[in-house]
Amino acid sequence: MRYRDAGVDISSLDRMKERIKNLVAGTFNTNVVTGIGLFGGLYQIGDKILVSSTDGVGTKLKVAQLARRHTSVGEDIVNHCINDILTLGAEPLFFLDYIAYTTIDDRVLGEILEGLANACLKVKLPLIGGETAQLPGYFQPGDYDLVGFITGIVDRAKLITGDGIRPNDRLIGLPSSGLHTNGYSLVRKIFFEVNHYPIDHRFPELDLPLGEELLIPHRCYLREVRKIRGYARGIIHITGGGFYGNIPRILPDGLGVKIDKRSWSPPPIFNLIQKLGDVPEEEMYRTFNMGIGMIIVVSPDDEEAVIGQIGGIAIGSVVEGEGVVIE
Amino acid sequence: MRYRDAGVDISSLDRMKERIKNLVAGTFNTNVVTGIGLFGGLYQIGDKILVSSTDGVGTKLKVAQLARRHTSVGEDIVNHCINDILTLGAEPLFFLDYIAYTTIDDRVLGEILEGLANACLKVKLPLIGGETAQLPGYFQPGDYDLVGFITGIVDRAKLITGDGIRPNDRLIGLPSSGLHTNGYSLVRKIFFEVNHYPIDHRFPELDLPLGEELLIPHRCYLREVRKIRGYARGIIHITGGGFYGNIPRILPDGLGVKIDKRSWSPPPIFNLIQKLGDVPEEEMYRTFNMGIGMIIVVSPDDEEAVIGQIGGIAIGSVVEGEGVVIE
Repeated sequence: MRYRDAGVDISSLDRMKERIKNLVAGTFNTNVVTGIGLFGGLYQIGDKILVSSTDGVGTKLKVAQLARRHTSVGEDIVNHCINDILTLGAEPLFFLDYIAYTTIDDRVLGEILEGLANACLKVKLPLIGGETAQLPGYFQPGDYDLVGFITGIVDRAKLITGDGIRPNDRLIGLPSSGLHTNGYSLVRKIFFEVNHYPIDHRFPELDLPLGEELLIPHRCYLREVRKIRGYARGIIHITGGGFYGNIPRILPDGLGVKIDKRSWSPPPIFNLIQKLGDVPEEEMYRTFNMGIGMIIVVSPDDEEAVIGQIGGIAIGSVVEGEGVVIE
Repeated sequence: MRYRDAGVDISSLDRMKERIKNLVAGTFNTNVVTGIGLFGGLYQIGDKILVSSTDGVGTKLKVAQLARRHTSVGEDIVNHCINDILTLGAEPLFFLDYIAYTTIDDRVLGEILEGLANACLKVKLPLIGGETAQLPGYFQPGDYDLVGFITGIVDRAKLITGDGIRPNDRLIGLPSSGLHTNGYSLVRKIFFEVNHYPIDHRFPELDLPLGEELLIPHRCYLREVRKIRGYARGIIHITGGGFYGNIPRILPDGLGVKIDKRSWSPPPIFNLIQKLGDVPEEEMYRTFNMGIGMIIVVSPDDEEAVIGQIGGIAIGSVVEGEGVVIE
């Protein structure tokens, strides 16, 4: 099974994104920092740059409904948004949320908001606004959409763009907590539509019941990135598109990466998905984080210091030539 | 018919908003400017304040689908977001969009994005990011959600909070272009569900066919507000909740307003809605803008100057005592 079999056609999305890029380029003014920053939009004020990004939880929300647990998805979107702007060296300033539904239990809405507020509290990120939109006739009962919007700030001189990446630089992987927020359309299809597992099914490979395993919240890398920001030549958040989709976003022209997949063991959930869904290996690394949620690119001289401080894993190197090779 | 008969229960939403307020208060730090700014979140950096807001187009999107015209909704959300932060005296800096769907024609997505980009171009607002989220199993074919996120900036000293409002201050109304983005669940119920009018029906009262009339984009008040910002003691964006819901948001304790509804004529679309839906008069002013999209509160001494510069209408005054009286 491939990701598009679950109803998500990434290459069509990619074409559309190209069109968006051309359309919006016309709206830019001289304060917009262009050509970089695909994980966030950049707006310069004086010698500071505001970094802003938006994303939704996506169909992980359907798993929350199946499991009737709605506190973790708030943490997912807060952490996802933080990680996106961390890649540019930014410090988060504030967060806004958007929740849309047709009908929703007060209890469920309360859980979502509690999750959002608690995730913000954990990292001292002010939740300064939001919108709760009731849209009659849109969603099935119980369905909802949850979207986050974050703004951060970075000194112009400390912006991390990937421009300084050189051949032989090291890739340091930071462990993910699980699937984070990507690949859930495929995951739902494999576990629930094709194989009809109940949400509380216990697989011998997994420590937790299926629903709990799938709902582990997106890990936040703020603490780690704060410690080693000064070393980072590039930071990659492994989100939708996996290794193949995200790593090239920050690589300078003419450089690629070589990743040694034996340098870490993907947590059992990934092997289970691959086996049950008969998913080709490459498709796994194109869809999931495979146990590595963020990659820090550093000079070989700094590798030891960075790993010493945040405990990441050396997973590969920057090489001459284009592309992502995982062997 | 009342608004809640169309599936939107504002008082339940209000209760939920109260709960949200308490939950999020715990996330604030000393940079968050609290106690004001209900049209936008406020975050202080130095002597500047960032003002941020999010909103969705809502069920006006269903009218766009009926009419098969998707360019105007982009303008709706851009202008709605701009107007929200204008109320605080802020100058817009940048905009991000979020579009969610299950399946969508490339043509439709192209129209939406074109509308967004063009609306941003008109007011030179950079569209620096966004997310296009395909959510399998969420929306009916053709349905989509469109959300905007805006960030603006204002000098701390020039923040408009409503605190300076005094009895006998004047309310200057700026004409709306139509329904803007509010009351569409009720409107759709009245025209399409109860009375089964076709989308291109021509009412003798209306200049345009029904669909075109309902899709007139939300007017942007940036040009007007820029001219008279220095006079404004308060600025009110008449959105969901109408006059009764929005005016009290910026009034100091112990003050109310008295509005003379004969001072302007609501455009024919409002009378048509009221008549066809048998909507109580007060409910009209609680749901719709009734032809007034923004209200500027100024000292009586400045009334003439402001009207001279931007051509608004004197619609009422600030009075001692609480509440909104429309007579």
